[in-house]
Amino acid sequence: MLEELEKEQEQQDEGLDYDTIVEKQTDRLAELLDRRDMKELQRRMEELNEFDVAEFLSEIDDNRMPMVFRLLSKETAADVFANFDPPEQERIINAITDSELAGIIDELYVDDAVDIVGELPANVVKRVMRAATPQTRNLINQYLRYPENSAGSIMTAEFVDLKKYMSVKESIARIRRIGEDRETIYVCFVISADRKLEGIVTVKDLLLADDDTIIEDLMDRNVIFASTTEDQESVSEKFADYDLMALPVVDNEGRLVGIVTVDDVMDVMEQEATEDIEKLAGMLPSDKPYSRTSIIEIWKNRIPWLMFLMLSATFTSMILTSFEDMLAVQAGLVAFIPMLMGTGGNSGAQASTAVIRALSLGDIEPKDALSVMWRELRVAFLCGLALAMVNFVKMLVLDGMILHNDAVTVQVAATVSSSILFIVLFAKSVGALLPILAEKIGVDPAVMANPLISTVTDAVSLLIYIYVAKLILHI
Amino acid sequence: MLEELEKEQEQQDEGLDYDTIVEKQTDRLAELLDRRDMKELQRRMEELNEFDVAEFLSEIDDNRMPMVFRLLSKETAADVFANFDPPEQERIINAITDSELAGIIDELYVDDAVDIVGELPANVVKRVMRAATPQTRNLINQYLRYPENSAGSIMTAEFVDLKKYMSVKESIARIRRIGEDRETIYVCFVISADRKLEGIVTVKDLLLADDDTIIEDLMDRNVIFASTTEDQESVSEKFADYDLMALPVVDNEGRLVGIVTVDDVMDVMEQEATEDIEKLAGMLPSDKPYSRTSIIEIWKNRIPWLMFLMLSATFTSMILTSFEDMLAVQAGLVAFIPMLMGTGGNSGAQASTAVIRALSLGDIEPKDALSVMWRELRVAFLCGLALAMVNFVKMLVLDGMILHNDAVTVQVAATVSSSILFIVLFAKSVGALLPILAEKIGVDPAVMANPLISTVTDAVSLLIYIYVAKLILHI
Repeated sequence: MLEELEKEQEQQDEGLDYDTIVEKQTDRLAELLDRRDMKELQRRMEELNEFDVAEFLSEIDDNRMPMVFRLLSKETAADVFANFDPPEQERIINAITDSELAGIIDELYVDDAVDIVGELPANVVKRVMRAATPQTRNLINQYLRYPENSAGSIMTAEFVDLKKYMSVKESIARIRRIGEDRETIYVCFVISADRKLEGIVTVKDLLLADDDTIIEDLMDRNVIFASTTEDQESVSEKFADYDLMALPVVDNEGRLVGIVTVDDVMDVMEQEATEDIEKLAGMLPSDKPYSRTSIIEIWKNRIPWLMFLMLSATFTSMILTSFEDMLAVQAGLVAFIPMLMGTGGNSGAQASTAVIRALSLGDIEPKDALSVMWRELRVAFLCGLALAMVNFVKMLVLDGMILHNDAVTVQVAATVSSSILFIVLFAKSVGALLPILAEKIGVDPAVMANPLISTVTDAVSLLIYIYVAKLILHI
Repeated sequence: MLEELEKEQEQQDEGLDYDTIVEKQTDRLAELLDRRDMKELQRRMEELNEFDVAEFLSEIDDNRMPMVFRLLSKETAADVFANFDPPEQERIINAITDSELAGIIDELYVDDAVDIVGELPANVVKRVMRAATPQTRNLINQYLRYPENSAGSIMTAEFVDLKKYMSVKESIARIRRIGEDRETIYVCFVISADRKLEGIVTVKDLLLADDDTIIEDLMDRNVIFASTTEDQESVSEKFADYDLMALPVVDNEGRLVGIVTVDDVMDVMEQEATEDIEKLAGMLPSDKPYSRTSIIEIWKNRIPWLMFLMLSATFTSMILTSFEDMLAVQAGLVAFIPMLMGTGGNSGAQASTAVIRALSLGDIEPKDALSVMWRELRVAFLCGLALAMVNFVKMLVLDGMILHNDAVTVQVAATVSSSILFIVLFAKSVGALLPILAEKIGVDPAVMANPLISTVTDAVSLLIYIYVAKLILHI
């Protein structure tokens, strides 16, 4: 009867997209929990993907959550645990016994265990480390010593190693024996007696070869690898360039110490993109999701740039002060300053953002500085011209004729419009050049954040406006 | 002797990082090319990774490049070709014979062929399509019909399909037979007679099971899948959430039509991050790398926002115009307007960027609006207070005492400083709220770009400044 029910279920599900199916499954779990049908709840949770189970558990109330979590089998429990956010992990750790905790820690891959330990409060970490076997504890401690964001800090120890004198048959037998708890079995690593990496062989190679082929004749010696201290950004570039599934990580002596798998690299890519976006908006990068960063930390990430930019605006104030009398001679000029500065800032930010992203994707290099400048100048000319023309008409028609602003004469409109052209030309050049310069001297180009470019163009926009006004209005 | 040389080579390479090794190998290739030692060049290129060969070929001059490319074996040639940028692909297509071209197209995975056809000029595409077999041509045409950025447009047709009544032994035999040219063999898809997706089974499952286990008993029925029209961003979220290697794509009737592999998803992630970054800087997203986008296209992507923002600045101008007389009463007030607007814009951009990124990563949802506002208000208070205090001291000491700006009295400093506090409070609230509002009404939050937030805060900052001045200075 159960099977019939399931058949019916499947027929109902047909044609739905996956998200809707998961939603329905989760609703059914909630229903079972309300009815206290724990046996069926247990059965259904084991069938679901561990990510969806983790999501379901995060949604139910804090009192019942650990109780439902304990229904899971040891293997599923560890997988679900790895998918939790730190607050849920902490709640679980506080609710289960030492031996249950030991079971979970034992089932986790080292890289997940290291992640968890890195994010939990010290007293919880102490309990986790006490519960781990001495071997796991040593491994976690060793991994925690690698620099943050290095290949060493994101690698894991659970890989399949082979020897070059093994046959394909022996290799497959070894995979069958030890493969169960390895993070990937599809790429196997051929190492020498002193653990030096000699080659890689994929399960595809093994399956397509004859049983008695020797690994040495099958393996790829041209192995792409990373060093333990290499930056994770460089690791993720290797995955993208070479379409890898797993990347071996070696120490100074060329000994294989771990592997990075593609699922970890996807997290790295997300993290690196977030960092770039934060830097572009004038924030220090945070290592935690927004919703879990404390107010003080957010403040610490945001105040340095705000403070620096506020103080740098002193130059703009000084320019305005010294030309105050001159600007006052021709009524109406002051009113267009914010528009000019805004247009300069926006134009510069567009150029710098495009160049910073192109640099970070390897699309352009510092040696392309001249050709980038030439592109940006042409784009700036086209943008500036279009903006200047529209502004000229707009000032005469809207400000002059419709709003009856007597200060807006043809000369004033010409002054503001030609200033726009020069300001856009300047802003786009600076926006393109500063990031390339930064890259050239080895500074992260994203530090040339849009707010910084805006502050530079603010001051220069004002000067351009003042000199154009002198020229056209003879003031 | 050759082997001895290689041994020596390997010893020299020991301890170097991978990038340096590749550089040395490429230098050696260039040397061989200069010496015209084509046989050794050919041998060494076959040994290298196809991405590195593509990089090497892109660097050598246009005349010799097609000639060197033709040294490659058919399989390597196709792999290298898929790694080229469109300009190199075009050059190769123009230099090789129809039958060589047919050979390459035949070896390509459909998704790569579709990508290539999508990026080449029409006349080159014609030649490619003529060279392809009718079957490949139909497949390419069918794939080209899926909407841009849909799961259908990034999927490929080369997967391993199994039937549920097969045994593990039969399945492995099938993989061995057809696996050679499949994009992945590690995830196999179990389909019914009418091609409906019934389950998946991994090679790991197969290897760890007994030879005579039936696939039906082994397969995972709880399959995560995508629909052909599903957005690629949702596809990449599934990979990140569920740590997938491959995702099946089904049509409306639940029939399996293709798969998306993890290497394609990494490109999607990069592309989506670039789009978000572009939108945040007030640009329309471009679908090509910066260096290959024409000046006119760049202009088209940038001018809409610049134009809109320039015109919206009219409000700020109008406010300034109507309060011009009032601001003129107290000398020195105008000089601080750019700083106040800048601080408002930067504070707002920080908040909106943080919130937009958190929304796009699923860290917060529209229903969290109130708690996000409460966080941002507290952060804004801390930031505003720090900025106001520093500004107060700076104005009295630097502007007043050092630069002898007589206009800067204690009252003026108090006016500017308290304005900062209110402006930051307003800017951060708007910056946090607008993206959430956008998400709520189903608009991409990244459209609430920083430039837009800046323009809104510009006008309000000015009003805040004017009212605070009225209050404190009684003007």
